[in-house]
Amino acid sequence: MIKRKTGILFVISAPSGAGKSTLCKRLLSEVSGIEFSVSFTTRAPRSGEVHGRDYFFITREEFMAMVNRGDFLEYAEVHGNLYGTSKSFVEEKLRKGMDLILDIDVQGAKQVFSKMKECVGIFIFPPSIEELRKRLIKRGTDPEDVIEKRLKAARWEIAQSHMYHYWILNDDLEEAYQQLKGVVLAERAKRERMELTWNI
Amino acid sequence: MIKRKTGILFVISAPSGAGKSTLCKRLLSEVSGIEFSVSFTTRAPRSGEVHGRDYFFITREEFMAMVNRGDFLEYAEVHGNLYGTSKSFVEEKLRKGMDLILDIDVQGAKQVFSKMKECVGIFIFPPSIEELRKRLIKRGTDPEDVIEKRLKAARWEIAQSHMYHYWILNDDLEEAYQQLKGVVLAERAKRERMELTWNI
Repeated sequence: MIKRKTGILFVISAPSGAGKSTLCKRLLSEVSGIEFSVSFTTRAPRSGEVHGRDYFFITREEFMAMVNRGDFLEYAEVHGNLYGTSKSFVEEKLRKGMDLILDIDVQGAKQVFSKMKECVGIFIFPPSIEELRKRLIKRGTDPEDVIEKRLKAARWEIAQSHMYHYWILNDDLEEAYQQLKGVVLAERAKRERMELTWNI
Repeated sequence: MIKRKTGILFVISAPSGAGKSTLCKRLLSEVSGIEFSVSFTTRAPRSGEVHGRDYFFITREEFMAMVNRGDFLEYAEVHGNLYGTSKSFVEEKLRKGMDLILDIDVQGAKQVFSKMKECVGIFIFPPSIEELRKRLIKRGTDPEDVIEKRLKAARWEIAQSHMYHYWILNDDLEEAYQQLKGVVLAERAKRERMELTWNI
């Protein structure tokens, strides 16, 4: 009687340590019809990485040809390697009715928002900067100056959060997860994403 | 770090037999911070009904005075009794941060939508008119001609469903419930309903 027209692109960002990866992994394991978007990159595959599942591994020439064709929703250079999200890859998935998660930083999200008006932005907040500091110290992977750099970045990222459609506070992990799942299910139920298919 | 500004008014409608009551009751028992809106009525209280919990029981004179003051978001006369939703009751609850469910027919919803721009409309669909017919026959409370009248009303109500923000198909009860809960949690997480309260 009613059915969805296409898949939805969810763009999810958060300061480092806010718990985004945990939340996204659980979402993908519990909710069907949603996948991670697969990025294109010029870096070499690491052991165990599969072309087309983890990344599409391409040469710098191929990457630049895609840039010139305007195929990237967003791209960036990180430590000398190029990473990008292909518009045609995303659109093909959405056309088939698959929802996608784009786990991406604030800079990349800005590019995507300007090119895909119908995408859904979700920003995940840590409970506080103080709590974020504690989490990063507890994680034990970063020296103190790197932690301070991450906190400075977090403040800047939070100041950009107005670009996103939804704000989720990851204070209680279970509550934050229920909200994230709720956003996905609610967006699927939006009238403008559906059509009436009478079968009386 | 972030907090919601006010409560949200959810306006929920469905054709008779679509399962709205079951879904709403479960929602209220499992999700905190949301209540049924309490209507005003001129009919006499039935045994066990409590003033202020089930209804606000008032006289026809009091009701008409509220109508004249423009206090009703919607009102209607049913079998000689007046029923209405008070705007000041709703606004006071929302101001305190409570979310409200208004379980109401399509005619009433139309009045509410025109007066409360920030409310959220949810329409619940039965799987099909044929399935609705089966459910109404199985329920065994209505004679055949009443069932046909309800089905005719259902077709008309479904044709009005474009007024609502969300469409939920109640084909599988568990899935429909997860979607309804999802809409409530997602609406709470919408950026425009939140404010940043820095505590760095």
